[in-house]
Amino acid sequence: MKDIHPTALVSDKAIIGDDVSIGAFSIIHDNVVVGKGSKIESYCELGVVNKFCDDTPLVIGEKSLIRSHSVLYSSSSFGDGLVTGHRVTIRERTTVGKGFQIGTLGDIQGHCEIGDYVKCHSNVHIGNLSKIGNYVWIFPYVVLTNDPHPPSHTLLGCEIQDFAVIATMSVILPGVKVCSDTLVGAGSVVGRDVESGSVVVGNPAKHICSIDKIKLKDGTGGSAYPWRRHFHRGYPEAEVEKWISEFSESL
Amino acid sequence: MKDIHPTALVSDKAIIGDDVSIGAFSIIHDNVVVGKGSKIESYCELGVVNKFCDDTPLVIGEKSLIRSHSVLYSSSSFGDGLVTGHRVTIRERTTVGKGFQIGTLGDIQGHCEIGDYVKCHSNVHIGNLSKIGNYVWIFPYVVLTNDPHPPSHTLLGCEIQDFAVIATMSVILPGVKVCSDTLVGAGSVVGRDVESGSVVVGNPAKHICSIDKIKLKDGTGGSAYPWRRHFHRGYPEAEVEKWISEFSESL
Amino acid sequence: MKDIHPTALVSDKAIIGDDVSIGAFSIIHDNVVVGKGSKIESYCELGVVNKFCDDTPLVIGEKSLIRSHSVLYSSSSFGDGLVTGHRVTIRERTTVGKGFQIGTLGDIQGHCEIGDYVKCHSNVHIGNLSKIGNYVWIFPYVVLTNDPHPPSHTLLGCEIQDFAVIATMSVILPGVKVCSDTLVGAGSVVGRDVESGSVVVGNPAKHICSIDKIKLKDGTGGSAYPWRRHFHRGYPEAEVEKWISEFSESL
Repeated sequence: MKDIHPTALVSDKAIIGDDVSIGAFSIIHDNVVVGKGSKIESYCELGVVNKFCDDTPLVIGEKSLIRSHSVLYSSSSFGDGLVTGHRVTIRERTTVGKGFQIGTLGDIQGHCEIGDYVKCHSNVHIGNLSKIGNYVWIFPYVVLTNDPHPPSHTLLGCEIQDFAVIATMSVILPGVKVCSDTLVGAGSVVGRDVESGSVVVGNPAKHICSIDKIKLKDGTGGSAYPWRRHFHRGYPEAEVEKWISEFSESL
Repeated sequence: MKDIHPTALVSDKAIIGDDVSIGAFSIIHDNVVVGKGSKIESYCELGVVNKFCDDTPLVIGEKSLIRSHSVLYSSSSFGDGLVTGHRVTIRERTTVGKGFQIGTLGDIQGHCEIGDYVKCHSNVHIGNLSKIGNYVWIFPYVVLTNDPHPPSHTLLGCEIQDFAVIATMSVILPGVKVCSDTLVGAGSVVGRDVESGSVVVGNPAKHICSIDKIKLKDGTGGSAYPWRRHFHRGYPEAEVEKWISEFSESL
Repeated sequence: MKDIHPTALVSDKAIIGDDVSIGAFSIIHDNVVVGKGSKIESYCELGVVNKFCDDTPLVIGEKSLIRSHSVLYSSSSFGDGLVTGHRVTIRERTTVGKGFQIGTLGDIQGHCEIGDYVKCHSNVHIGNLSKIGNYVWIFPYVVLTNDPHPPSHTLLGCEIQDFAVIATMSVILPGVKVCSDTLVGAGSVVGRDVESGSVVVGNPAKHICSIDKIKLKDGTGGSAYPWRRHFHRGYPEAEVEKWISEFSESL
């Protein structure tokens, strides 16, 4: 059973899985595969083609939710459980793992690699050639840049490693590597690599402490980071069990 | 007389007041009340439901203007004279007073309380649990945050009090209180409460002076703040008279 | 030959050139002129009228591309070769030269003057009364402001001169002049005029060096600025020849 609104324009060539719903005024172009159980809301356009696309389709994994007014290009693929906010734009040749969440107004410029269970909040801008690991968090109005002396032909994408957290309104400058288990504080402009396990903040961003120095404000006095110590909502059970045992051993 | 475009999809269950116009390709879901004399432009979707909604409808006050491509959820209510820009997103369980203006690309995350005559310019992000008083001004690309050590289960909304002004591209950190008659300068990152009557600026934001020290650049030499001394456009006449008498007495 | 999607709503009074295509669910109002060979994608609305419009139409030059979900008002004009990203909003009484590019989520507030071959990346906000010269580059999340003590009746637009480059997430404060051949580094808050040939950076922005001190990271050791030394993609051939001869003479 599919539930396709009568005003939606869905190509006969698109491959639409079982139990998919497609909202009013949405457009699905030819080269699109939508996994079963997914919901595409209204005013979405999937499978836009430009000159940078190859022949590979836009692939949306199973049980995904694409909120209204979103635009996704051909030649990008997403694992199961993709969730977008409203008005998200994702360009071509972007490869994304499972459980990706990207909030309202998110803008991914294409030619990016993104791992599993990455969560971007509203209005995040991911520049061309960005590489993002697994379990990364990116908060509102963060920009990942790529041109060291704009405008130029030299593009150096940023690299954001596993479990890194980039807080609101930070800019990651071209080619910067934000290593695993790090926190970039709000409003930072990050021009140098961020070492694993460290916290940086400011404009320009400077190292301020080791990440385990930041305490939870919930009254327990525990360390707030690495966040997988205490924050498990929405992650796969097997992974959460590993996290729990990792930190119980370290006590 | 209603003016509903033939391409609009309007639920029979929605309560649409007299003299309401609804633009092309707009969608009005079941649980929506639109006050009389309001105008809904094209590509808007009103009354979206998610798991956080309760049974209360989306209520739009009288003589409101919702510009095109906006998305408003169920279980939020707005007083008379709401004006939105284009592509505004307002989530569930947000209670807003009269005369609210929110510019293009505004993004209210839901579960917020907003008073009367609040004006947000373009691309403002209001996080969950924010509380905003009356007569507040928020300028482009300002973000009100709520998580003191993201990601976590501890959410501390910001509080912005009456007549406060937050200038462009500022971030208000979680749980911060910006008191009445204050100015947060452009590009600030505000981590501490801002005392009533003061100006803060910078990253991190620091107190720089009392708000009445800032002079108008219109040649009169008068104080620019509190702004209600000299700026009255669009406010109710009775209120403006109070403001005028407040400052004539103080001379 | 025109290619107008059957779901598009195109006024009989609009003047649509040859070889124009108009996408699904787009709306073209009365007072619009679209130059030949242009492509309007889906969900666009052209020729919106408000109280600030005069009788002049929205004019889109030849061979333009308006990407989906964009909204352009009446009483603005664009030279040939306009290219917009998705969800661009451009208000009334804005006059723009040839070859203008404005990325996804761009927001031009109206009453602006913009020269030839200006390129704005994603999510740029151009305030009322801004003046932008020729060959200017503006990168993501930059805001040009205009109110020196908001809210007020005093509006001082910014002026950005030829070949200036404003990097990501910078704010240009009201009335500031960014002169020709300058670079504003990422994350800057610019409160003073930027002298021709200089680089400023920081919050607040400070002069750090002459622009020719910044070297290319492509291994050649050449100066990265003025960028027209080495970056020619997409500019008119005659202009590029002038640039090449300008810098060969200077060696």
